[in-house]
Amino acid sequence: MAKTNPGRFFEDYSIGDVIAHAVPRTVSGGERALYHALYPARHALYSSDEFARGCGLPSSPLDDLAAFHVVFGKTVPDVSLNALANLGYAEGRWLKPVYPGDTLRSTSKVIGLKQNSNGKSGVVWVRTKGENQRGETVLDYVRWVMVRKRDLDAAAPETTIPDLKPALDASDLVIPEGLDFTDYDFTLAGEPHRWADYEVGEVIDHVDGVTIEEAEHMMATRLWQNTAKVHFDATLREDGNRLIYGGHVISMARTLSFNGLANAQMIAGLNAGAHANPCYSGDTIKAWSEVLDKAETPAPGVGALRLRLVATKGGTPFTLKGDDGKYLPHVLLDLDYWALIPL
Amino acid sequence: MAKTNPGRFFEDYSIGDVIAHAVPRTVSGGERALYHALYPARHALYSSDEFARGCGLPSSPLDDLAAFHVVFGKTVPDVSLNALANLGYAEGRWLKPVYPGDTLRSTSKVIGLKQNSNGKSGVVWVRTKGENQRGETVLDYVRWVMVRKRDLDAAAPETTIPDLKPALDASDLVIPEGLDFTDYDFTLAGEPHRWADYEVGEVIDHVDGVTIEEAEHMMATRLWQNTAKVHFDATLREDGNRLIYGGHVISMARTLSFNGLANAQMIAGLNAGAHANPCYSGDTIKAWSEVLDKAETPAPGVGALRLRLVATKGGTPFTLKGDDGKYLPHVLLDLDYWALIPL
Amino acid sequence: MAKTNPGRFFEDYSIGDVIAHAVPRTVSGGERALYHALYPARHALYSSDEFARGCGLPSSPLDDLAAFHVVFGKTVPDVSLNALANLGYAEGRWLKPVYPGDTLRSTSKVIGLKQNSNGKSGVVWVRTKGENQRGETVLDYVRWVMVRKRDLDAAAPETTIPDLKPALDASDLVIPEGLDFTDYDFTLAGEPHRWADYEVGEVIDHVDGVTIEEAEHMMATRLWQNTAKVHFDATLREDGNRLIYGGHVISMARTLSFNGLANAQMIAGLNAGAHANPCYSGDTIKAWSEVLDKAETPAPGVGALRLRLVATKGGTPFTLKGDDGKYLPHVLLDLDYWALIPL
Repeated sequence: MAKTNPGRFFEDYSIGDVIAHAVPRTVSGGERALYHALYPARHALYSSDEFARGCGLPSSPLDDLAAFHVVFGKTVPDVSLNALANLGYAEGRWLKPVYPGDTLRSTSKVIGLKQNSNGKSGVVWVRTKGENQRGETVLDYVRWVMVRKRDLDAAAPETTIPDLKPALDASDLVIPEGLDFTDYDFTLAGEPHRWADYEVGEVIDHVDGVTIEEAEHMMATRLWQNTAKVHFDATLREDGNRLIYGGHVISMARTLSFNGLANAQMIAGLNAGAHANPCYSGDTIKAWSEVLDKAETPAPGVGALRLRLVATKGGTPFTLKGDDGKYLPHVLLDLDYWALIPL
Repeated sequence: MAKTNPGRFFEDYSIGDVIAHAVPRTVSGGERALYHALYPARHALYSSDEFARGCGLPSSPLDDLAAFHVVFGKTVPDVSLNALANLGYAEGRWLKPVYPGDTLRSTSKVIGLKQNSNGKSGVVWVRTKGENQRGETVLDYVRWVMVRKRDLDAAAPETTIPDLKPALDASDLVIPEGLDFTDYDFTLAGEPHRWADYEVGEVIDHVDGVTIEEAEHMMATRLWQNTAKVHFDATLREDGNRLIYGGHVISMARTLSFNGLANAQMIAGLNAGAHANPCYSGDTIKAWSEVLDKAETPAPGVGALRLRLVATKGGTPFTLKGDDGKYLPHVLLDLDYWALIPL
Repeated sequence: MAKTNPGRFFEDYSIGDVIAHAVPRTVSGGERALYHALYPARHALYSSDEFARGCGLPSSPLDDLAAFHVVFGKTVPDVSLNALANLGYAEGRWLKPVYPGDTLRSTSKVIGLKQNSNGKSGVVWVRTKGENQRGETVLDYVRWVMVRKRDLDAAAPETTIPDLKPALDASDLVIPEGLDFTDYDFTLAGEPHRWADYEVGEVIDHVDGVTIEEAEHMMATRLWQNTAKVHFDATLREDGNRLIYGGHVISMARTLSFNGLANAQMIAGLNAGAHANPCYSGDTIKAWSEVLDKAETPAPGVGALRLRLVATKGGTPFTLKGDDGKYLPHVLLDLDYWALIPL
């Protein structure tokens, strides 16, 4: 019985620890096809090798969020198996596109620790890095979670709270080598709206909705080898619900945002993210976006939009929080990211 | 809010317009594997590279209907987003097999317009063409839909009704280059019945049935990037049903027809098609076929069968219409196509 | 109506008959991605090309059970379409790994026949062989099923009961060419436990559970082109249940066993197997293993464990049978196999 992985508890983390996560993964056209089957994914750069070549890339990469899910999934057995809550993300950067044939692995460095005042749990900050088979970092991001203590009498560690940017500057973004939007084909991309057509403060209702099924969210979550029990075992909770992996909601909302943001092709940065409320099978997910910032980049024809992406299950659109400052119950996701779009 | 695609309305079409549809798509072994997971697909030519080479092709192509769905899916945002009904198909021809690695795009030309007498909607005929990355047409077909008007006061266009063949002649069919059934392996194909064994008027009950699930039809429909809301959002209709994409029923019926038509390997022509009644999750689809015509072809060992393929959800088999000339409620699909089969 | 496959009945088998099964299948990265989506598959050798190369293989093969399902699926129309029960497996050996791009076909030889005393059915033993496109056998195994007679007056065949080993000896196992675990990376594999850490008699509770969905088991079963009606048609049985393919339970239990047996990478032999009770959608599958035997192998750093793998749907763990010697109702699967693990 001692051979199964009990996961790490709060007192098992020390500042500076580097955890090499298990189960490297080679991706192929199979993962791409499944991403298209599980989400209404239509961004042309991730759909067509020809379109990607027209943008200066060697072929169509794996969706940026698929790369994120693969890297993230590996961390679950070491970081969040005993997590009480997934508290936030910061300073996420996509550094290299991931192509079919690449093999990804992940490591996480512990960069922050703070025991809660109740003495039963604490917050752990890790900086996670995904690398390909050439040792190139394809993605890094900071994530923090609340983790249970195993031994309530374990001494509290010295509190270390990392100094994190509230949002990346546009100059922090890494543009994929060769990316060039000067010959961008707006017709094939599906919408005429370019960087200049979006204004800070503008809100876009993405209109479409998808009602979530158990089989789909479980297939998605397993595809990323995220095997947290709560997503798969209907007998765990008294209400018989399986909690849907937050990343499934992120991908659903981002792909729904095609309708109005078809040219916001690549995700370059993740500034912040909150899983505001749990999502269950039967919920109908809709999405809206708000333009938070705009910037040019050094790459030819490439601009950047900082976007808030909100996923909801019904409720009044365009409102996030109540008078008490808490997320309204219909809000599932509040994500802040940078996307690359033609000028 | 103005950035999302509202779709075209009846008055937005003019005779001769050519619409380049967005989001080209590169296919891989992933799409093939998913086709096998979503449908009981067993035609050997689409399952085995070795078998396909034994028939003169370089390797196993993507299923002809998968190619159709990819081409069709791209047209939805421009042709049928505001459609009230999908009325028919004609003159569909598969011109080149599609192989893993190919990138497909679609264009449609408006070839017919007729405003309805109520002044609220009209019928639009388009000829849609799917092309690969070399600019070769892989598929073309005519489809007509009933589309709402945005502005009821918009002037009616001149009525143009295209002259369409009720069915393709066998001589209209394009046989894939190199196709040769003279060394066809009936054992590996799964049935001994060849062209000569089928008689015009013969009816084949395909026996097997599949009960449809929400997760499966949504995955299939998304895989083809067909994102019409009504297939995905359970809150759209008062009855909470998601309408199943007609192409899902076509693929289910065609793959069920393996049992009795295992050697009707390739689809070469689409003569006509009617989605007789809507299909919903929980329906159990069965299929039967009728041999409508037979012809030889110029390719070695290759014959053609014209087949009616009918999908039902229960009910009396082999009857299509009631005394009123309308499809009986259990009939889902009435499809008329040409298949290639060894002589 | 005579063109559909009625399947073989008991009197259609003769000792020595060799049946070439239809529909060869080329596998790709798509099948691998789907295996990861359908099961919580995390064995590193089947997830990463780099990890597989570190173990002496050219790249990551298709999961051994996926290869088994492809070979098995082809036999269904000829062996088990009229089966009343799938009685057992013996002498299964994996002889060559299967890689993306390989094409598999199956043949079965009838090696045993015994009519039941009721005269209505009989037991058929077949030895099934899966071959790749080079004619190399990748897998062989014996399976026996109880099959209905078509004609109750057909004469009983001479009884032939094959002489089968209750379990393979470790020396019967074929180790894949080049396999070498001397530089095995336990960190990337996910657990530190090696061959020496397991003791005969040890029992491992794999802890995790998965609640089964209709869409998932149907997609899995179709992926292997196993089209037995009872898995797909909810109208066949009075209770409306679709019976889940036994192989789905095998794959679910084996992948759940990662948690505690992460290094039992490859399946080399199948000694015996019983589908103790039927499994239906909504059941939550859990698994436990017992170490039955241990052996060294001639390959560098490679040991073998003989394991009992049990799948359950709730109930008391670690008990298989009641006082009457019958499987308890919560037991779904009792499988006896050899796995390869680093010394």
